[in-house]
Amino acid sequence: MQNGKNIMEYDTVALDEEQNAVVIIDQTLLPGRTELVSLKTAREIRDAIYLLKVRGAPAIGVAAALGIYVLAKEIAERDFEEFYAGFCEYKDYLDSARPTAVNLSWALKRMEAVALKAGRDEKKSVAEVKEALRREALSIWKEDIEVCRRIGENGLKLVQPGAGILTHCNAGKLAAVRYGTATAPIYLGQERGYHFRVFADETRPLLQGARLTSFELAAAGVDVTLICDNMCGAVMSAGLVDAVFVGCDRVAANGDTANKIGTSVVAAVAKHYGVPVYICAPTSTIDLDTPSGKEIKIEERPGDEVTEMWYKERMAPEGVKVYNPAFDVTNHELIAGIVTEFGIVRAPYETGLKAIMKSALEQVDV
Amino acid sequence: MQNGKNIMEYDTVALDEEQNAVVIIDQTLLPGRTELVSLKTAREIRDAIYLLKVRGAPAIGVAAALGIYVLAKEIAERDFEEFYAGFCEYKDYLDSARPTAVNLSWALKRMEAVALKAGRDEKKSVAEVKEALRREALSIWKEDIEVCRRIGENGLKLVQPGAGILTHCNAGKLAAVRYGTATAPIYLGQERGYHFRVFADETRPLLQGARLTSFELAAAGVDVTLICDNMCGAVMSAGLVDAVFVGCDRVAANGDTANKIGTSVVAAVAKHYGVPVYICAPTSTIDLDTPSGKEIKIEERPGDEVTEMWYKERMAPEGVKVYNPAFDVTNHELIAGIVTEFGIVRAPYETGLKAIMKSALEQVDV
Repeated sequence: MQNGKNIMEYDTVALDEEQNAVVIIDQTLLPGRTELVSLKTAREIRDAIYLLKVRGAPAIGVAAALGIYVLAKEIAERDFEEFYAGFCEYKDYLDSARPTAVNLSWALKRMEAVALKAGRDEKKSVAEVKEALRREALSIWKEDIEVCRRIGENGLKLVQPGAGILTHCNAGKLAAVRYGTATAPIYLGQERGYHFRVFADETRPLLQGARLTSFELAAAGVDVTLICDNMCGAVMSAGLVDAVFVGCDRVAANGDTANKIGTSVVAAVAKHYGVPVYICAPTSTIDLDTPSGKEIKIEERPGDEVTEMWYKERMAPEGVKVYNPAFDVTNHELIAGIVTEFGIVRAPYETGLKAIMKSALEQVDV
Repeated sequence: MQNGKNIMEYDTVALDEEQNAVVIIDQTLLPGRTELVSLKTAREIRDAIYLLKVRGAPAIGVAAALGIYVLAKEIAERDFEEFYAGFCEYKDYLDSARPTAVNLSWALKRMEAVALKAGRDEKKSVAEVKEALRREALSIWKEDIEVCRRIGENGLKLVQPGAGILTHCNAGKLAAVRYGTATAPIYLGQERGYHFRVFADETRPLLQGARLTSFELAAAGVDVTLICDNMCGAVMSAGLVDAVFVGCDRVAANGDTANKIGTSVVAAVAKHYGVPVYICAPTSTIDLDTPSGKEIKIEERPGDEVTEMWYKERMAPEGVKVYNPAFDVTNHELIAGIVTEFGIVRAPYETGLKAIMKSALEQVDV
């Protein structure tokens, strides 16, 4: 464990091949302390995910992929089926860390498929299977960096140097490996001396914007100003915001987008003030099987996140009724563009999203 | 000091003639405990205002009026000028409690004028001056109740029984004497079995909606649900809100309205979802000398209200830049009506507000 790091010098999740460990930035200590933690045992890896030391769907997926490789490498069996039995035990154990996190099981299944192909189909040695797992884990890790970087490149075309950018929640470096999605254009702009002025919504109730986004942007030297969610009107009305960049949890076929609660509020206010809203979305979040936002189920979370968490004392009366949806849906009419790694989709979204998904399958830039 | 009261059975500020005391609900203990406090000495009265045991512009004005009467009554001098010297000492002392609260000095000046008229102009005895002060203090108290009640009656015409109503911040009973402004239609509806479903924005950073509005409405038996400020889009999009009622700090001649930060966000979102926004405004808050919202200066407050207050630990990094405006301006285009004690003003506001102020001067209903 190391102290006093600048998070921008480290990936959120990375592989330490020398130590055979997954190295993460422990997010439960942020913004107070920046510490790197090396995870070597199954227990350490699972707990890091379970206890939210690593969070954000892409980062969880990468941590699981690197984690299962680290564990598989230590399996002593020479026979593939015996090796595979041990692999599956680890896989199920890691998979149980956060049962609803899609990226977790997605990454583990992808790793399992590689093991089965090499060991069972191609009859390769366990050493070769381990090498195939190593390459796949590093691919998953590298893909995240590459996809985010390309989203950043595409998003950067939408703003001028010196622009005011507002973001909501944390679709940042700390939710992925290196660039994040909504923050990718900001980081690339920072590398190129664009001098953006960024406003970070604090994002109640869990304050990801205050705790994580303002922290990581400030660490990167970006000019970032923290505001309460209800101040987006004040900054837009004052002409301080040229574009909104946010991440997303799911994009429906018609362009309706589910993201952290409050995104639809930012979007409606932006519409009123003529500020374009851009959704930064890896094509993995585009779901053509969901026709519109109406079909997206919104998770409702415990009321005490609103009435008690973070607070020295209760700040709402005992027993008060609370509505605490974790996400909301932003209607496609409020969205100026959806920025993917393969280009920017504009309205009409039905056709645009279909075309981009075709490009994604063919891995072709549009 | 008494415990375990239901605040709805007590006025926020009242005169106890038997004890010669101002009795207030101590708001610094809310929502945890409801206690009535009797204020008798100058120190007690001033500290109650200074320490925010009584807050909200109308309530502060009433507390000062009742307070200066309570103190004046105890002045032993028989000669008016000697009495008046003592009165002025108390007045200056109370006035220093919150130098920027307009209602405080407004109420004290109104009391002083009454004393001077009776004692100096009309040469009345000190006992008669004290009686004139008593009547004036009770008038100020009663006017607040009456003005709010009439705002409530007028606002009630705008909604149907069973309606969903959203409010922001606390323009409630606890900011006035009995009904509040934005809450007045809700309380009158409650008396008449209208069964409103109310959504209270928590109102970051100081959480007046969570601490005060959800508390007082729940105490009155109103069906109130607390939400974070960024959830107004989710409840409006779900069709749960039929009208927005909010208070205001100042209405400009063109209808632009300054109110607690976030009001303009609620209004822009309401516009998007076709929900009418009503500003509940005693004519005392209408300022025809201010042409538009542009001329209203917005107070900026310390950043640590956003980054530290209420919290067990810092929830934003040390040294992060914070923008923390206390109010924002809602453009008149976003306002469906301004509800005053003399009726509802609709666009075009320039002419409507002039007419209502004329009625106010003539004390005529429109």
